[in-house]
Amino acid sequence: MLPEAIEELISQLSKLPTIGRKSAQRLTLHLLRQPEFELNEFGNAVLNLKKNVTLCQRCFNFAESDLCNLCQSAKRNHRLICVVEDVLDVIAIENSNEFNGLYHVLHGHLSPLDGVGPDELKIAELIARVEAEHDPEEVILATGTSMEGEATATYIADKLAGGNIKVSRISQGMPIGGDLDYADSLTLRRALSGRREV
Amino acid sequence: MLPEAIEELISQLSKLPTIGRKSAQRLTLHLLRQPEFELNEFGNAVLNLKKNVTLCQRCFNFAESDLCNLCQSAKRNHRLICVVEDVLDVIAIENSNEFNGLYHVLHGHLSPLDGVGPDELKIAELIARVEAEHDPEEVILATGTSMEGEATATYIADKLAGGNIKVSRISQGMPIGGDLDYADSLTLRRALSGRREV
Repeated sequence: MLPEAIEELISQLSKLPTIGRKSAQRLTLHLLRQPEFELNEFGNAVLNLKKNVTLCQRCFNFAESDLCNLCQSAKRNHRLICVVEDVLDVIAIENSNEFNGLYHVLHGHLSPLDGVGPDELKIAELIARVEAEHDPEEVILATGTSMEGEATATYIADKLAGGNIKVSRISQGMPIGGDLDYADSLTLRRALSGRREV
Repeated sequence: MLPEAIEELISQLSKLPTIGRKSAQRLTLHLLRQPEFELNEFGNAVLNLKKNVTLCQRCFNFAESDLCNLCQSAKRNHRLICVVEDVLDVIAIENSNEFNGLYHVLHGHLSPLDGVGPDELKIAELIARVEAEHDPEEVILATGTSMEGEATATYIADKLAGGNIKVSRISQGMPIGGDLDYADSLTLRRALSGRREV
């Protein structure tokens, strides 16, 4: 019914997560209305995505050379290492403007049912990194607060225990702007047990 | 913070309707995990989108040659013309398997506030088409049921009045599977005034 080139892009867009066939149709028709040069920019951005992208050899963030921009920066505190599950978490924490150290991207969390054990993650690399770097101060475990994220944090904390490095976990409790009656009971329980004197 | 190639694709994806920056980040990270050949397929689909695509000279659907697949098909009833606002509507009606005629795509609806008058749409082309074709039987006005869609249908009906061609409008009423208490009052009013004896 539609020209092949249009069907092809609809089917390519449908493969993306969260984009169903109807959305793919709408996006494709939107793109058909764009000038040729914008399509070229978009298409080339897709083609070039992986061309110059590699993983940072220290923190496994995306990088354009051996080390990522953050690991190269002299403005960052190289003695703090924040451990996260993936690169989206790096972006999220950077946007919070609360952290000035370096990261360590595990590229996932422990999930035995999916066949993800410690060897599938960059955990050995983290231990080696902590041992190799001179004078690291603190490792902040910022994996997710799901069961898998918790298990991953606990596993790493165990591995790092006994060294003379401080290991911390991000705090858990009520999200900001949240109404108590909308919070799930586990979050409320954590918020209560983690209460601080004011 | 991220390599330029990644930032570039995030910004390209963010330009698409319904895709915000966070979704664009997620989609980009998903794409980074795909094998190179899939990225090439996707990128080339974008680059080639408009290469072989033109508008059908009769109905203004997308086409690969002078006439679209539907206008070329001998299996369709060429005496029925279904007038729609855009190509997504053609897809939707085709999926309903209820219509076997040809289409006429207006590429929009009348919207004076946005500067869209009759000359911006393929209305003159529709009138000329109806006059030029031998023995057309019926024009079905299947523009949307918004105020603009209604106005467009009324405008075209006026233009076609006086010829000896039947002009019809798609019916309006309760959508199938809809609960009456969720329907807006205008839809309910139409459903009542358009009631049929059973």
